[in-house]
Amino acid sequence: MAADIEFYFDFASPYGYLGAQGIDAVAAKHGRRVDWRPFMLGAAFQTEGTQPLTSYPAKGKYSEHDFARTARRLDVPFSLPEGFPHATLAAARAYYWLKDQDADKARDYARAVYRAYFGEGRKTYEAEVVADIAAETIGADRGELLAAIQTPEVKEKLKTATFDALARGVFGAPFYFVDGEPFWGSDRLEQIDQWLATGGW
Amino acid sequence: MAADIEFYFDFASPYGYLGAQGIDAVAAKHGRRVDWRPFMLGAAFQTEGTQPLTSYPAKGKYSEHDFARTARRLDVPFSLPEGFPHATLAAARAYYWLKDQDADKARDYARAVYRAYFGEGRKTYEAEVVADIAAETIGADRGELLAAIQTPEVKEKLKTATFDALARGVFGAPFYFVDGEPFWGSDRLEQIDQWLATGGW
Repeated sequence: MAADIEFYFDFASPYGYLGAQGIDAVAAKHGRRVDWRPFMLGAAFQTEGTQPLTSYPAKGKYSEHDFARTARRLDVPFSLPEGFPHATLAAARAYYWLKDQDADKARDYARAVYRAYFGEGRKTYEAEVVADIAAETIGADRGELLAAIQTPEVKEKLKTATFDALARGVFGAPFYFVDGEPFWGSDRLEQIDQWLATGGW
Repeated sequence: MAADIEFYFDFASPYGYLGAQGIDAVAAKHGRRVDWRPFMLGAAFQTEGTQPLTSYPAKGKYSEHDFARTARRLDVPFSLPEGFPHATLAAARAYYWLKDQDADKARDYARAVYRAYFGEGRKTYEAEVVADIAAETIGADRGELLAAIQTPEVKEKLKTATFDALARGVFGAPFYFVDGEPFWGSDRLEQIDQWLATGGW
């Protein structure tokens, strides 16, 4: 069985949100599945000496323009949340807790969190809102989830995912690996499609 | 007559080189021409607080991998010159001097300079080599060119082009404007093609 495509992202990354839209369909076209792996993008910025895109004067302005333009092209809702970017540890921890129970449901939850943050202006950086979304979308137990994301075991899972991402050279989001081949950016889905079709170049 | 596509680049930018390959063909497909505008990318980095890609630890490693991969995809030669990145003021000044005489020949010269630097390992950061390339490619007079790029008038042209780029929000290379719409990156040519075909989204 062919390996999963590994998809690294942060729940506060606009390009991660945009890059999440098409990746499962591209993978499915080639009989692959996608392993969604949220990590703490801020840790990568710190290691690299970079910042969130919107912190740069000209690159920030362009990025905001391009986020919205890309969303229109993909026909998905988008607006930059007030106070962006937020720390989304609760959402990522909940993801790994849910994934251990059911990877497909965890992915549905992840899609819903992204849409809530960038499409609906919901405060996905608050644990209570994360629990609401998990309950609404996949019927998770709010109380159980809120307790789980406070445990050292679940916190550790996100740390491990983040260390793993940095060790593999991930420095931004979305970041994909296709049979070990790295692709950075939501605008590389066409190339991933070609790579899967041809075996690379 | 439809406006030219404006193409901002630096003669030491690997993605500028890669993004230069297809832009004229995309433009021609839609009855457009491309106005090639070298500028000093280092000035943009300074304004933005950024650095050349290869200076970042993980992003640098990925970029070097992706430069070579993209070159293979486009079937053009590529290797990162020893001592990269170099200041390519002489090449850019010579371009503007040549452009005032013949824009088409200046573009041929620019293509040759890019190929010499990234494809043939030639020292295009040296004025003598720049003069050689202009002589070989478009029959420019070496002596005249070497004298011209030392004049305040020609130096001023590159400064103006750089100020103009920064004023328009250019922060990287390649950077294209299509009827005022900005596109950053060599991997956006497909989108530029779509934009020209549809009038945008």
